[in-house]
Amino acid sequence: QKEAEERIRREAAENYGSENYGKLPLNQSQERTGVQRTRIADINASRAGETVSIRARVHTSRVTGKIGFFVFRHQDSTIQGVLQVDEKIVSKGFVKFAANVPDESIVIVEGVVSKPNEEIKSTTVSDAELQIRKLYVVHETLGRLPFSLEDASRCEEEINKEDTQFSRVTLETRLNNRIVDLRTTANHGIFRIQSGVCQLFREFLLSKSFIEIHTPKILGASSEGGANVFEIKYFKGNAYLAQSPQLYKQMCICSDFERVFEIAPVFRAEDSNTHRHMTEFVGLDLEMAFEEHYHEVLDILDELFVFIFDGLKSRFTSEIETVKRQYPTTNFEYLPKTLRLEYKEAVQLLRDHGIEIEKYNTDFYMLDKFPLEVRPFYTMPDPNDKNYSNSYDFFMRGQEILSGAQRVHDPTLLEERAKLHGVDLRTIQAYVDSFKRGAPPHAGGGIGLERVVMLYLNLDNIRRCSLFPRDPKRLEP
Amino acid sequence: QKEAEERIRREAAENYGSENYGKLPLNQSQERTGVQRTRIADINASRAGETVSIRARVHTSRVTGKIGFFVFRHQDSTIQGVLQVDEKIVSKGFVKFAANVPDESIVIVEGVVSKPNEEIKSTTVSDAELQIRKLYVVHETLGRLPFSLEDASRCEEEINKEDTQFSRVTLETRLNNRIVDLRTTANHGIFRIQSGVCQLFREFLLSKSFIEIHTPKILGASSEGGANVFEIKYFKGNAYLAQSPQLYKQMCICSDFERVFEIAPVFRAEDSNTHRHMTEFVGLDLEMAFEEHYHEVLDILDELFVFIFDGLKSRFTSEIETVKRQYPTTNFEYLPKTLRLEYKEAVQLLRDHGIEIEKYNTDFYMLDKFPLEVRPFYTMPDPNDKNYSNSYDFFMRGQEILSGAQRVHDPTLLEERAKLHGVDLRTIQAYVDSFKRGAPPHAGGGIGLERVVMLYLNLDNIRRCSLFPRDPKRLEP
Repeated sequence: QKEAEERIRREAAENYGSENYGKLPLNQSQERTGVQRTRIADINASRAGETVSIRARVHTSRVTGKIGFFVFRHQDSTIQGVLQVDEKIVSKGFVKFAANVPDESIVIVEGVVSKPNEEIKSTTVSDAELQIRKLYVVHETLGRLPFSLEDASRCEEEINKEDTQFSRVTLETRLNNRIVDLRTTANHGIFRIQSGVCQLFREFLLSKSFIEIHTPKILGASSEGGANVFEIKYFKGNAYLAQSPQLYKQMCICSDFERVFEIAPVFRAEDSNTHRHMTEFVGLDLEMAFEEHYHEVLDILDELFVFIFDGLKSRFTSEIETVKRQYPTTNFEYLPKTLRLEYKEAVQLLRDHGIEIEKYNTDFYMLDKFPLEVRPFYTMPDPNDKNYSNSYDFFMRGQEILSGAQRVHDPTLLEERAKLHGVDLRTIQAYVDSFKRGAPPHAGGGIGLERVVMLYLNLDNIRRCSLFPRDPKRLEP
Repeated sequence: QKEAEERIRREAAENYGSENYGKLPLNQSQERTGVQRTRIADINASRAGETVSIRARVHTSRVTGKIGFFVFRHQDSTIQGVLQVDEKIVSKGFVKFAANVPDESIVIVEGVVSKPNEEIKSTTVSDAELQIRKLYVVHETLGRLPFSLEDASRCEEEINKEDTQFSRVTLETRLNNRIVDLRTTANHGIFRIQSGVCQLFREFLLSKSFIEIHTPKILGASSEGGANVFEIKYFKGNAYLAQSPQLYKQMCICSDFERVFEIAPVFRAEDSNTHRHMTEFVGLDLEMAFEEHYHEVLDILDELFVFIFDGLKSRFTSEIETVKRQYPTTNFEYLPKTLRLEYKEAVQLLRDHGIEIEKYNTDFYMLDKFPLEVRPFYTMPDPNDKNYSNSYDFFMRGQEILSGAQRVHDPTLLEERAKLHGVDLRTIQAYVDSFKRGAPPHAGGGIGLERVVMLYLNLDNIRRCSLFPRDPKRLEP
């Protein structure tokens, strides 16, 4: 009898404050109280003493006896939470409950901001921690995680050390479990930067009187020669996926839009399994009518890239730092006015000095005037040397990220060039006909978004810069 | 002898100033002088006496004897040009040459701005015209135009008059010759407005901490039930075209991006040949984690649309007017805080008062709380009434332009709902699994870009709002 009484008393004593923790019912929008949450990124020592409520993931937890240490994560911010048994609010039952919440579950935590005894190095908030008062599970993870976020977030330098104790979470494993992988702070940084590149690209072009267009991705004919094109069943017939908006953006020029750009998926049925090829990627395309010379367009492109690089440096400083914490590298160097070399010069330079192009101290340059025969049939020949053309490529850290040219806007010359390239005229008739209605001289280019991000951050694989990459062997998730 | 001398003298006399006109050689970027051109839109009476150089299309020309009247067009602006034989600059030969330049050719015209005797009603520049001094053909049209730009630009009211002398350029003819059709001022207006909607959509969402994402359009499985999906040959296997970014934007929410949007093509293999269906259109999609209630998302969507409508009204006034000159209609009316009705109420309202929803004096409203059974399996049931759901549609001028809902973020409930809808669980396993890694409550929606533009401008066919529309019967141009 006495023993039983004792046990009940003890259990009751252990379970005070049971309203302070637990699992919330499934949110079906039952009520709206207008509650405000604090962002982890906004918590610091100056708020010591304040009670805050955060929604976050359980990044890690370590509980021993009456005390638990948690790391809570929200996007690219982390903070330490301390849960210690006391006599009124935090019962042993509370600590036990919290210890059993699986990593990566989403919780609502109410706590008092306090200054830690010493700087906390393992979290992004280093001068404050949370004394936990309430903890509710919003949504719990089920089953075993494919890897811990701690492992997935570890700095490359740590893993590459000779005596490292850590094994690498491979790219393959990451991509197979992309939803969990994408939660790392580095990945949040990468995709914020990707979003930023698009934003800067548009901001600059809109300020230069460009308009945004949307051209069809389903085509009736495989317009660019037929190789590397995906075929679609289209009702009772067939159709093809656009390999670029090339022909359509030029048609917009023929319709007098003068300056157009598009951000859209591009599809390539290329069986290339390399670090820099995907079967679907995002193209940043533009096309522009000019007055006299295609260098008017090259000048705009030059300004555009400098604007993007400046913008990344000034607006995405913290994201760049976040990515570099996991993938350390040198800063991306560029010049206020981009180095522009002619293909001939560059070849000479390479012959004479090896890769001493580095002496220019830039990770970004343009090559102009490519040999005519290596470019597509719609490339305008150089007026002074028939072996060369009015075409250009841009390079970041030595790899191509943009390809462009003045286009042939004359139907007669276009047919002639197509024949020389062995292109079947019947497949490009609509394209050629566009120029019979009068076309201004024009030039443009296409940029691979993921390549720009990969090379800006000096990452080793383009798949790291695509949310859900597609290649000949990957269609999932 | 005398006769021959006379003829030579006469011809020489007719051909003075032959350097003032002619056909320019094909532009291959031969030189760059830095010439500046004036935009037609920037010419007005205050510049009388000034010599300007414009690049424009020959919109129309009318030459009788020694005098010619031209209308030159640049994008949505037109101006009259007068060419009159004089004794030094304009020879008979010049006038003859100009008379033979085909409509829609691109020309460079140098002329002196002058005030006309009376207002010119047929051009957008009404208080100035050009006394032509030089005229060079940059690029000439070949063959017969499918229709004149004058016919293609004519106001609907003119064509619809009972005693009209004008025949309609049909939509079919326009779309078959889209490059020429797109040159009308109304079309320039429509696609500037379309570009504006995207710009405003992003501007608002970026200001609310959303990030832009790019999700794959090639999928390994037809994720949304299998109906109406296009199949692709993918190397040795098959793949499918995304019918929406639904599952992927939700996966981004599971990866803690919290607020995401995407502007991208959406593909529907629906054999619908109506005025408002296309097989490919542009989706403006967004998804957002919320704290307590999906109405947090509905509030953002409400603000978003008001921001877009306000922005169109203030920034695209002239484009809206341009479109209305050809397609007259009432202004689009909306309220500063959008009318929000529950489905049940609305049905009652319709029953009681017919379409007296008009009493609210708005062309824009939201319907909330649709019956559960008419919505997709991933729609969150209403917490209070199992026959209803946390879902909504938005309407412009009575037609649906957005569909959205709180999504089921719990894997157990999701499987249950899928089963009830007869969805094969194997086809959605990856989707269901996403939610096993912990997911916050979230809601979102998808907007059809072309529908928004069509209904804002009250146009009769969605194809008018797509540069190169695709439907079951059209894959060209």
